[in-house]
Order: sequence, then structure tokens, then C-alpha cells
Amino acid sequence: MQENEIYQKAVELVARARGKLEVCCKVGASNLEELSVAYTPGVAEPTRAVFRDKSLQYQYTSRATMLAIVTDGTAVLGLGNVGPEAAMVVMEGKGVMLKAFAGADPVPLCLNTTDVEEIVQLVKHVEPSFGFIFLEDIAAPRCFEIEERLNRELSIPVFHDDQHGTAMAICAGLTNVARLSGCTLSDKRVVISGAGASALATANLLFEFGLHDITMTDSKGVLTRERTDLNKYKKAIVERSTAPACASLAQAMEGADIFIGLSRAGLVSRDMVASMNKDPIVFALANPDPEIMPEDSLAVGARYVGTGRFDYPNCVNNLLAFPGIVKGAMQARARHITMKMKKAAVRAIAEYVPDDLLSETYLLPNPLDRNLPDTVAAAVAEAAERE
Amino acid sequence: MQENEIYQKAVELVARARGKLEVCCKVGASNLEELSVAYTPGVAEPTRAVFRDKSLQYQYTSRATMLAIVTDGTAVLGLGNVGPEAAMVVMEGKGVMLKAFAGADPVPLCLNTTDVEEIVQLVKHVEPSFGFIFLEDIAAPRCFEIEERLNRELSIPVFHDDQHGTAMAICAGLTNVARLSGCTLSDKRVVISGAGASALATANLLFEFGLHDITMTDSKGVLTRERTDLNKYKKAIVERSTAPACASLAQAMEGADIFIGLSRAGLVSRDMVASMNKDPIVFALANPDPEIMPEDSLAVGARYVGTGRFDYPNCVNNLLAFPGIVKGAMQARARHITMKMKKAAVRAIAEYVPDDLLSETYLLPNPLDRNLPDTVAAAVAEAAERE
Repeated sequence: MQENEIYQKAVELVARARGKLEVCCKVGASNLEELSVAYTPGVAEPTRAVFRDKSLQYQYTSRATMLAIVTDGTAVLGLGNVGPEAAMVVMEGKGVMLKAFAGADPVPLCLNTTDVEEIVQLVKHVEPSFGFIFLEDIAAPRCFEIEERLNRELSIPVFHDDQHGTAMAICAGLTNVARLSGCTLSDKRVVISGAGASALATANLLFEFGLHDITMTDSKGVLTRERTDLNKYKKAIVERSTAPACASLAQAMEGADIFIGLSRAGLVSRDMVASMNKDPIVFALANPDPEIMPEDSLAVGARYVGTGRFDYPNCVNNLLAFPGIVKGAMQARARHITMKMKKAAVRAIAEYVPDDLLSETYLLPNPLDRNLPDTVAAAVAEAAERE
Repeated sequence: MQENEIYQKAVELVARARGKLEVCCKVGASNLEELSVAYTPGVAEPTRAVFRDKSLQYQYTSRATMLAIVTDGTAVLGLGNVGPEAAMVVMEGKGVMLKAFAGADPVPLCLNTTDVEEIVQLVKHVEPSFGFIFLEDIAAPRCFEIEERLNRELSIPVFHDDQHGTAMAICAGLTNVARLSGCTLSDKRVVISGAGASALATANLLFEFGLHDITMTDSKGVLTRERTDLNKYKKAIVERSTAPACASLAQAMEGADIFIGLSRAGLVSRDMVASMNKDPIVFALANPDPEIMPEDSLAVGARYVGTGRFDYPNCVNNLLAFPGIVKGAMQARARHITMKMKKAAVRAIAEYVPDDLLSETYLLPNPLDRNLPDTVAAAVAEAAERE
């Protein structure tokens, strides 16, 4: 389908269905006997049981699978700060994915506040209704603070997909490049174009995987120790990186091994890819139009090329990661999403591609593979239980 | 079924289904084409449309039918302050009723705060995700303040069923006694046993229907001007009532026309009913065991007898009222639940009983009648649109 056709169908779809999610009953309610059991007076007995032992809430209510998609609508798709009303369209779309791929029961909570403290307090106050908090489309750097605070102050998992979903997919792709080529990732020089939520999370996850020579750029240029306009999250990356200072994205890419684009269409030229080290990795993930098109990268010698799109090989997409994380954490009733769980997910995504199929054009599973989430979930749950 | 059997089945049911509610997709998500339309990139187009015109949110998202059941778990059934975890069992039960009878999409929000200001702020912040706020099982007098505040500060309907649902059912029952007997309600002497949320709301609604001679009792005795321990809501009733002072529930009932029980089992004796005026109305609504059993009231001359139970005639139950209020307000996209809407609902409930069937034992519709909510909703929506 052409983009215009998709857009037209998307409007027709939501107008016809009046949104995408509904709440349904898992129990009968069609006669007095069923209502006596499902509602009054029957309801008193399981209520008393949970009152005596709160842990029974996970058995006697839907909490185990209820997931709040929490947004303030400030960083929605490429559209930016559209506000909570418009954001609900996207949250319902994400909800469809979370139901279809993770088996969760997603409830959009679109908030008309952007205040960190108010959002943190709100999520803390609704915690008893949910088994998982899925943060979505909250602008950086507030998203970092909100996630950190909630991770510390809640006893249910909190996950900001915009940060970690893409970061995990990238690391799975790089893991499989190493598996395929026999190279060592930790020696590689990395350039990340973009310094938003996903870019910062990617840099941090790369550090965890042993990479350290990481140069990042934002809309004002290369992140350096000299810049005085960096927030603490950007500063932390610069301080941790061993990359030599340089003046521009183009200069950074000279001799680099890995380019990761999390910025916008067309930022990278053929010449820039041509200037990279031998057999470079180019994951240009701006959506829908990447920093450089795969055919252009390949034409000037890129060997491992990925995009965020479903219509090219090597789709480096957060859909590879978040369903398994959600499903695994909920199954294990984990209290937090830990680094070990994220690493286990990355490994499981990478290993899902069998040895005999692994190739330059098959570095990652198909994100639409319905069996992938269960495999990732099993690895995540195992990691959670081991901790 | 015996009570014990119901209780056992209720536990088995929730344990088997893991709660009672789930979130489902109203749109397909089984292949790339469907996902392109339901999620990315299609989702961008309806998002842009709502961003340009917020009112489209009601057409392009589920907001029109999404209903938050908000509780702090402080006044749950007869169990009291069980906390948010145990309260979720009841909220899911209520959710089943709201789905089955009102066609709403109910989302339990069980809060771990009982602070009025925090609850008000929280509901205000989640407002953009919902079309209706259904307050449930919040203890008096905080429930009054929370409802008042939210009514003032939100632009979507707020309804505290524990207050108004039962009050409306009672007024519908009394309306039909007047219709049947030709009596004038405004002359009647009323005694209300209980001074919780539903009792206070009932007194206030009776005032609106022209009744004024109302005596209330709480656990410490009759509410009088002399009592110094009354909250402002109880005080307001005493000040508005024209009832003469008296010393006890028993004394208040001597010569009274209407007894309304919203307290607890066994508080009323045969002698007390026998002491009432001729052809008295006895609505003993404590659940599951009323203040006095119907057979006892009837034995000593009560003419119009109701309980909150489904297994006796004249079931004076909030289920008569809340589905129609919710459905009608959501259909009309009302901004508030007004007194005119409540009165329209009361009239519609009463008039649902046809003239030729109206009798001492058929004062009210069967609350399980699946056609009743639509009739009440139409009246509520009409009243909302007229305002």
C-alpha cells in the first residue's frame, strides 16, 4: 500500500471502530446466577481473601496482565508534543501491539500534566491496579527522570520502550554481526546520530556490551566535554566514552565501524558511509525515511545494513524487544526490569536467528514473527527468576 | 444457590479466569497490512487530525466509552476499608455490570491514597483518557468532597453510584407508590436508618422530590440540631428537614409513613413497623440481610415492602439506575450529571412499570431487565441535551 492509502485507511478504521481498544468480560453476566457469582453477593468472598493476603490479587484479579500505557503526549512519533488527546490514538495503536504480541491488557493513561513529580505520584497511586507500567512517548530528558524515579519507587516493572526497545534491537543486531563475522564488538568505533531517548539508551546499553568508543551527535553537533548546553544524561555518555573529540558527524564517521541513526531522514551521505572503516555496519533507523537509504549504503561498501522498516531486510525495530520484555516480566512477576533481563532479551532475539540462516541480510528475526515474543519472554523470565 | 455455594463459585471463577476483565482489540492485527493501518505508519494520520481538532478524539479513539472506576477501597461492600488491592475484586465485578448493562469500557483504578486532594488531582490528570468517571466505594464524607470537586473541575461526567444509584431507585419506588395509591409524597413522614453515602444522597434527592419531613439516624442515634459530632453533610440534612426532634429510631418510626433502611441487618422490629402510620412503606435495603425481613413487615401491616435483594419482589437496587445514567450521559456526551438528568432517570425507571402491572408487589422494574438501561439512557440523554 502507498503511504496515502495507509493514512486514509487508518482514519477510516478508527472512525468506524471508534478507537481500537475495548474492555471485555472474561466471565458470564447473562443471568441472575452468573451475576450472583461474578458480582454481588459472590464477590465478597474473593475480596475477603485478597484482603487477608494481598498476593492473591494476582490470582483473583486481572492485575497480573493489566498494563498501563502512560504518556503525557510530549514526544509522539515524529509529531512531537501533540498533547494527551491526540496521543491516545497512538497509545491505542501501541495497545493493539501489546495485546497481540505480549498478551497484555493495555490501558492507555494519557495525562494532561507534564510535571515529573505529578506523573510519578500519579503512577505510584494507580500501581495497585496494574502489573506493568509501560512509559511511552514522553520527551527526553523528563522520560529518564520519570523512569528512574518509578523504578526506584514502584514494586512492579517500569519500562520506557522508546529508550530500551530500540536499544535492545540494535544490540541484538550487532551481536549477530559479531556472530557472523567473528569480530569483537568492544573494539568497534561507534557513531550515533541523535541524542534523544532511544539514542542515549542505546549508548548506555552499548557500554554494557563492552563498547566504549562512542561518538554522539545532536541537532547542535557532536557531544563533547566542551559543550556547556548538555543535560546530565548526555554529559554522562561523553564522560564514559573513550572516543576522541571531533568536529562533525562527517568527521566522526571517518574510520568508524558502526553507524547508528536515530535522528532524521537524509542526514548521512554516500560519501560519509564510504569514509567508514572496512565492512561497516549502518543501522539508519529514522522512520519512515532513514538517515540514508539501504541501497545507497550498500552501493558504497556498507556490509551490514539495517533500517527500522518492515519492507527492507534487517528490520531493527523495538517490536523485536518490547513484547518479550513485557510478557517475560509479567510471567515472572518481576519487580523491576533489570540489566540482566535486558541482556537476556538481547541474546534471545539474536539467537532466534539460526546459524544456517544468519547472513548479511538476515541479521535479525522478523519482528512480526508471532513465536518470537514467547522465546524472548522465556529468557527474560528466567533471568528475572535467577535474580 | 446457597450463600456458601455462591462464595465458593465466586472464588473458583476469579481463580480460573484470573479476574473478570480484559482489554481487547477492536481492530485486526494479524498481518503487516493490518498493523500498518492500526499502528505504524498509519496511526500518524488520525493522530494529526485529533491534534488539529481535539473533539475528534471522541470519534477516533475509545474515549467516548472508556470509563474509569475510581476507588480508594475505603468503603467496600459491607467489608469497609479493605484497601485498593482487595477492592479491585469488587471493581472488576462492577466493571462486568457496567459492560453488560451500560455498554461502557470499564477500567478499574484502585488507588493507594485516601487523600482527597491527591485523588482529585489524579482524576483530573487522567481525564483525557476517559469519557466518564465512576466513583465507587469511597468512604463518606470524603466521597462527597471528591465528587463535588470533580464535578466542578472536570468536563466529563462524574457519578458516585453509592450515593445516587440507590437514592434514585428509592425515589422511583416511592414515585410508583404515589402513582398506585394516589397519595401525595410531599406530605409523608420519612425515617432513614443510616447516614452514610447512600442515606445522605437519598435524603437530598427526597428533598428535591418535595419531601421534607425526614428523620435520619446513624450509629449514635437520631441526627439532631443538638448533636455536636455531625459532619457538614449530616448537619445540612438536619437543617433542611422539618421533622420534629425525637429520641430514637423507634420513636421516629411511630406514625411515620416511609421507612428507608440503609444501615444493617435486624435494626427494625415488628413492633416498630406496627407503630408506623397506616399503609406504611418499608424499604429495608441493608444487604444481604435487611433491617427487617419482608415477611415480618408484611405481617404487621406494611403495605409497600422492598429490599435490595433480587429474590424478593420490589428490588430497590442501584442496578436500576446506574447503567442508564452512564449510558445516557455518554451517549449525549454530557459534561456533568445534573439533577434534571437524575430526575429524568427516576421518572423513566418508574414509568417502565406499565399501569396494568403496577401493584404492591411490582413497584419497580426487574433490575436484570436488559431493556431497562436503554429506556433510562434515552431519558437521561434527552434531559442532558435539553440543558
